[in-house]
Amino acid sequence: MSLNTFGHLFRVTTWGESHGSALGATVDGCPPGIAVDEAMLQHWLDRRKPGQSRFTTQRQEPDTVEILSGVFEGQTTGTPVQLMIRNTDQRSKDYGDIAQKFRPGHADITYWQKYGIRDYRGGGRSSARETAARVAAGGVARAALASLAPGLTITGYMVQIGPHAIDRARFDVAQIERNPFWAPDAQAAAEWEGYLDGLRKTGNSVGAVVEIVASGVPAGLGAPIYGKLDTDLAAAMMSINAVKAVEIGEGMAAATLTGVENADEMTMGPDGPVYASNHAGGILGGISTGQEVVVRFAVKPTSSILTPRRTVTVAGEETEIVTKGRHDPCVGIRAVPVGEAMMACVLLDHLLLHRGQVGGNRGRIG
Amino acid sequence: MSLNTFGHLFRVTTWGESHGSALGATVDGCPPGIAVDEAMLQHWLDRRKPGQSRFTTQRQEPDTVEILSGVFEGQTTGTPVQLMIRNTDQRSKDYGDIAQKFRPGHADITYWQKYGIRDYRGGGRSSARETAARVAAGGVARAALASLAPGLTITGYMVQIGPHAIDRARFDVAQIERNPFWAPDAQAAAEWEGYLDGLRKTGNSVGAVVEIVASGVPAGLGAPIYGKLDTDLAAAMMSINAVKAVEIGEGMAAATLTGVENADEMTMGPDGPVYASNHAGGILGGISTGQEVVVRFAVKPTSSILTPRRTVTVAGEETEIVTKGRHDPCVGIRAVPVGEAMMACVLLDHLLLHRGQVGGNRGRIG
Amino acid sequence: MSLNTFGHLFRVTTWGESHGSALGATVDGCPPGIAVDEAMLQHWLDRRKPGQSRFTTQRQEPDTVEILSGVFEGQTTGTPVQLMIRNTDQRSKDYGDIAQKFRPGHADITYWQKYGIRDYRGGGRSSARETAARVAAGGVARAALASLAPGLTITGYMVQIGPHAIDRARFDVAQIERNPFWAPDAQAAAEWEGYLDGLRKTGNSVGAVVEIVASGVPAGLGAPIYGKLDTDLAAAMMSINAVKAVEIGEGMAAATLTGVENADEMTMGPDGPVYASNHAGGILGGISTGQEVVVRFAVKPTSSILTPRRTVTVAGEETEIVTKGRHDPCVGIRAVPVGEAMMACVLLDHLLLHRGQVGGNRGRIG
Amino acid sequence: MSLNTFGHLFRVTTWGESHGSALGATVDGCPPGIAVDEAMLQHWLDRRKPGQSRFTTQRQEPDTVEILSGVFEGQTTGTPVQLMIRNTDQRSKDYGDIAQKFRPGHADITYWQKYGIRDYRGGGRSSARETAARVAAGGVARAALASLAPGLTITGYMVQIGPHAIDRARFDVAQIERNPFWAPDAQAAAEWEGYLDGLRKTGNSVGAVVEIVASGVPAGLGAPIYGKLDTDLAAAMMSINAVKAVEIGEGMAAATLTGVENADEMTMGPDGPVYASNHAGGILGGISTGQEVVVRFAVKPTSSILTPRRTVTVAGEETEIVTKGRHDPCVGIRAVPVGEAMMACVLLDHLLLHRGQVGGNRGRIG
Repeated sequence: MSLNTFGHLFRVTTWGESHGSALGATVDGCPPGIAVDEAMLQHWLDRRKPGQSRFTTQRQEPDTVEILSGVFEGQTTGTPVQLMIRNTDQRSKDYGDIAQKFRPGHADITYWQKYGIRDYRGGGRSSARETAARVAAGGVARAALASLAPGLTITGYMVQIGPHAIDRARFDVAQIERNPFWAPDAQAAAEWEGYLDGLRKTGNSVGAVVEIVASGVPAGLGAPIYGKLDTDLAAAMMSINAVKAVEIGEGMAAATLTGVENADEMTMGPDGPVYASNHAGGILGGISTGQEVVVRFAVKPTSSILTPRRTVTVAGEETEIVTKGRHDPCVGIRAVPVGEAMMACVLLDHLLLHRGQVGGNRGRIG
Repeated sequence: MSLNTFGHLFRVTTWGESHGSALGATVDGCPPGIAVDEAMLQHWLDRRKPGQSRFTTQRQEPDTVEILSGVFEGQTTGTPVQLMIRNTDQRSKDYGDIAQKFRPGHADITYWQKYGIRDYRGGGRSSARETAARVAAGGVARAALASLAPGLTITGYMVQIGPHAIDRARFDVAQIERNPFWAPDAQAAAEWEGYLDGLRKTGNSVGAVVEIVASGVPAGLGAPIYGKLDTDLAAAMMSINAVKAVEIGEGMAAATLTGVENADEMTMGPDGPVYASNHAGGILGGISTGQEVVVRFAVKPTSSILTPRRTVTVAGEETEIVTKGRHDPCVGIRAVPVGEAMMACVLLDHLLLHRGQVGGNRGRIG
Repeated sequence: MSLNTFGHLFRVTTWGESHGSALGATVDGCPPGIAVDEAMLQHWLDRRKPGQSRFTTQRQEPDTVEILSGVFEGQTTGTPVQLMIRNTDQRSKDYGDIAQKFRPGHADITYWQKYGIRDYRGGGRSSARETAARVAAGGVARAALASLAPGLTITGYMVQIGPHAIDRARFDVAQIERNPFWAPDAQAAAEWEGYLDGLRKTGNSVGAVVEIVASGVPAGLGAPIYGKLDTDLAAAMMSINAVKAVEIGEGMAAATLTGVENADEMTMGPDGPVYASNHAGGILGGISTGQEVVVRFAVKPTSSILTPRRTVTVAGEETEIVTKGRHDPCVGIRAVPVGEAMMACVLLDHLLLHRGQVGGNRGRIG
Repeated sequence: MSLNTFGHLFRVTTWGESHGSALGATVDGCPPGIAVDEAMLQHWLDRRKPGQSRFTTQRQEPDTVEILSGVFEGQTTGTPVQLMIRNTDQRSKDYGDIAQKFRPGHADITYWQKYGIRDYRGGGRSSARETAARVAAGGVARAALASLAPGLTITGYMVQIGPHAIDRARFDVAQIERNPFWAPDAQAAAEWEGYLDGLRKTGNSVGAVVEIVASGVPAGLGAPIYGKLDTDLAAAMMSINAVKAVEIGEGMAAATLTGVENADEMTMGPDGPVYASNHAGGILGGISTGQEVVVRFAVKPTSSILTPRRTVTVAGEETEIVTKGRHDPCVGIRAVPVGEAMMACVLLDHLLLHRGQVGGNRGRIG
């Protein structure tokens, strides 16, 4: 019920604002005896860290994570793991111009309307800095998955920036870490570089599509109706800042398929059914099939741009706004590690739920 | 935590299988003093009722709802409202052929793997009949919204069947109830009729895209991070059978927009900000803006088709399957009233949450 | 969050009023493959059934339970089990005199103040009839426990009625089912019979203390802080109508013990630690020790009495009230099977939680 | 569902161990615009602080609370309030003797059995230090109550230590802060001083009974069945370390009362019903009456004593144990501010729930 919390048995509550003294995550429900340390979490945080290229925010922060509780002698204890990241770069002076103006497409107006709070210092709770806490929590989830579901891997990458999509024929997982966009297609990465440089020079921004794939997911995770694996994945991804759509498997394209085309035909392999295709994205009736779980989400462009846009002030006056300060030409880039973290959290949660509620798969095939 | 439940304060737990004696919804958290009766709920159920045209399942059921508790002298009492719908048409003989074979693209295989239960009688818990309970519960939510947010309206309609989308230039809300597809475009409806007749004759099926719009939604509903309005809407829609994608506002297309294009510019009207566009779909930072809330979801084609598909049996033998019996050429059609019901439930839930947690909007503009 | 629900993974939502058409329980989270049928549940309901002696309410109802969903071919399917009990004896005319008057010590006044609902027909939602649904749900929990924790037994009995307590030296479990009071002490039962006959003749009532003991509970159930086993037991028992106190182990008497006296000393047996005493009631730090789990609760006397008491009416007039109609001289008697049912539900829930979160006990002794 | 969390809308998750680097509370759901600062919270923490007299643990810690998030310019923002208290006095060497032995009556054995974790440094998560986080969170709840329910006061005090109870005839609220026991009876305080000095000299300990009273609680808070006000209070108090029983109003004594005695008769006052007594403890049918809400709980003696007790080691060897180091002759003393904090949290939570679900009391009397 806590509205800053996600998960059923593995529960993550994030806290903190972009310009407060710290932010973090309270991770409750991690099984005991899982090897976790700060270096392990820092690894994932470093991948998300801002300021690593000219295509992400120039905010410079080490984003160092501290484990305050729940780990003793290098292992989780079964009690809450508190993760804290101090905010060090809190230059709020850059935001002076926008203190009284609402940014079109930004949450500052709805937060104001709801809470009567105007945290003009850079987004407050709605800032993408909150996602650092998710990435740290995701690191705990990955550690638990490594122990409970060995062989399970999670890979996130960018499939589209603006109108420019990757070519699936050139898909090469080895490329993902070799460019600043997490592109699995070297040619697309080169194309995006030029495209984003152009946008950056004019202070404009653009949206993106991120894909997260988990392989080695056991069949049987999920539940009917509202605790479906895809329901929880949709919520998890939609909860990331600026996300406007979530797809499982074929996603929106499922609308254009016929039943004949959409059927993932099966033959029998040595270890169970073998699927000829994966239109379903690894989930049927809310429950994992054992195939790759495939999720995509669209990230809108940031509203912090240099082109003047018409808006209103808190006092109700019409005006124009230009957002100076740090710009992210494509906030979608930094969403890749965040999507991976959410996938890890959801899969671990459903693994624990399945273990608790069913205790192991009950139906054999063959 | 209950995995068949949705909602925070207004909570709906659905129960029942396609071929059990009854199905229904336990609705907890409806405010007291709301006028609710069976006729009111029946109105919504009748819109969803199967067998109304040759384009939806030929299962013939009156789907009569009974209120077993929580309503006294025509008003809700504040205690759980139990809604029951008896299953009357339980012809399970039609399904004999598929008792041992898994249908490609159907949940029968994952339910079997997880639970070891093979309810061959027609989908069991994964059947779309479960959505009747949601529609009934949505009727309770609508009654409460009528009292708590007068002027709020919810309208669902079909925007695409297979490759054929409506033409937004021809959008006419008056058309929606005049064709068996909930099409807001008479020309599209005519086109779909021919297209679906063709599919039906070959025992094939196709996907669809449904759009649900709520207008008159107060600004300020939602919450940061995981209790976002869009997060809950994404989960609600993804939890409907056969849904594979959910979009808010621009949805996937947000990826192709620049920040300049995506900004919903504002001017000042007599009652507050007036937006020049609604790329955001009425939600910024997880909180409603007061604009129309716009959600779309894609429904995959049903896996019950006449074309033989390769599959395996429970015993692990390779075989082919053809699903005889009743067919829905486009299960997306019946998802329209279901999507409306989910929208009603989520909005009421967030209205109650907002009232509880904040007590009314705190920030004024102008 | 649903306020008519209890449990984390094994979740029971009760619904229904004393004079509506039916009442029941929605049981979500029961593991699949558990043998459950109506006869099994009816067995427990029959133990609670009113009208079995002159010491409980004269309301005559068969309290026949119907399983509407979640059981297929005699086994649970893993989906919600809906249990319905029709109300057949709804004689509301007896309550005419109290339609406008509040009964001192009865919930009718607080329900009115909160909800503005006056269900004068016999308590509405606050009636002890609601506990029939708990007993039915408890039957499902017992069936699952029989499978998951064989050897676990739950025994409830009466230890005190009014000022008359049992003599622990005469404790004989075989007596419990041989008298209408669930007394484990034949002499106390005889004493209570005379005492209650006296109260009944004057239309008076009295309180009671019920004890519920579970043996064969595995060590390790529970969790720190708020999901403690004793926390959930306290909530479960306090949620029963008319309960005003809950004790674990020594309970209130723990206040009078010194640390030396209170220590449950241990020696080593063949299967682990053997405790010399059980002051703790089988729970330390919120987690079961493997000893008997011992819970007691006090039930207040019913407010429906023949002695006139001063009160007020809905219109705010001072008056006197006498409650005619059916009387329970000691509502505590019927609370015995209810307490057992709550114990079963809580233990099953924690068994599932432990399995999900920890996966089995991790620390060995010896 | 999070097992370290309490509350429905106002949710507190505590984290941290006795000898980790910090402990604290994640407070989610506090309404926005509430004046909160560190000094205000420190006030409550100082009342609970250990080492204030020779009757509580000699651990010396400033227990300084830091607000890391959720408060901006002196007001809550509606987002999570993170409260952190650094552990400064972590002398774990004192506990060397007990590293391998289980203390009879202590949670070290059940934590070991469940989690396989042996945090010999002083209780780990089961240490009463965790309650500092509750007191800090309770400070936030009190601040919100001051704004939302002005006039509501919460008073906790000791009513019994070992066999020595206060004399209600001497009850004087002014005495509570004038003695180290929170005794509302100066004579009892004097008596306890001698009694506890005796126990302290022999390294023994004793239990206690604490009473918490809230006055000015509006009628109508609570809900039927499981979200009852008394259910949540019972859970809240039982969740405090070492608590073994919880009573509402008459509590266990309700068992001995007749219906005639137990009836809280009513007359009509200028502002509504006036009760002649408060056997109910301010709660009927789970909902507040507007009278004082009265809760009592029994705290067992600490298991850290100097008298040797028989026990076993992790290796399964029989031995004796003596707990050296810091001793609390009566841990119940420090439970007084904790019980107050829990009362504040539960009342605020139900105030928000009531506002959300009902929106204000609906039934008038007179």
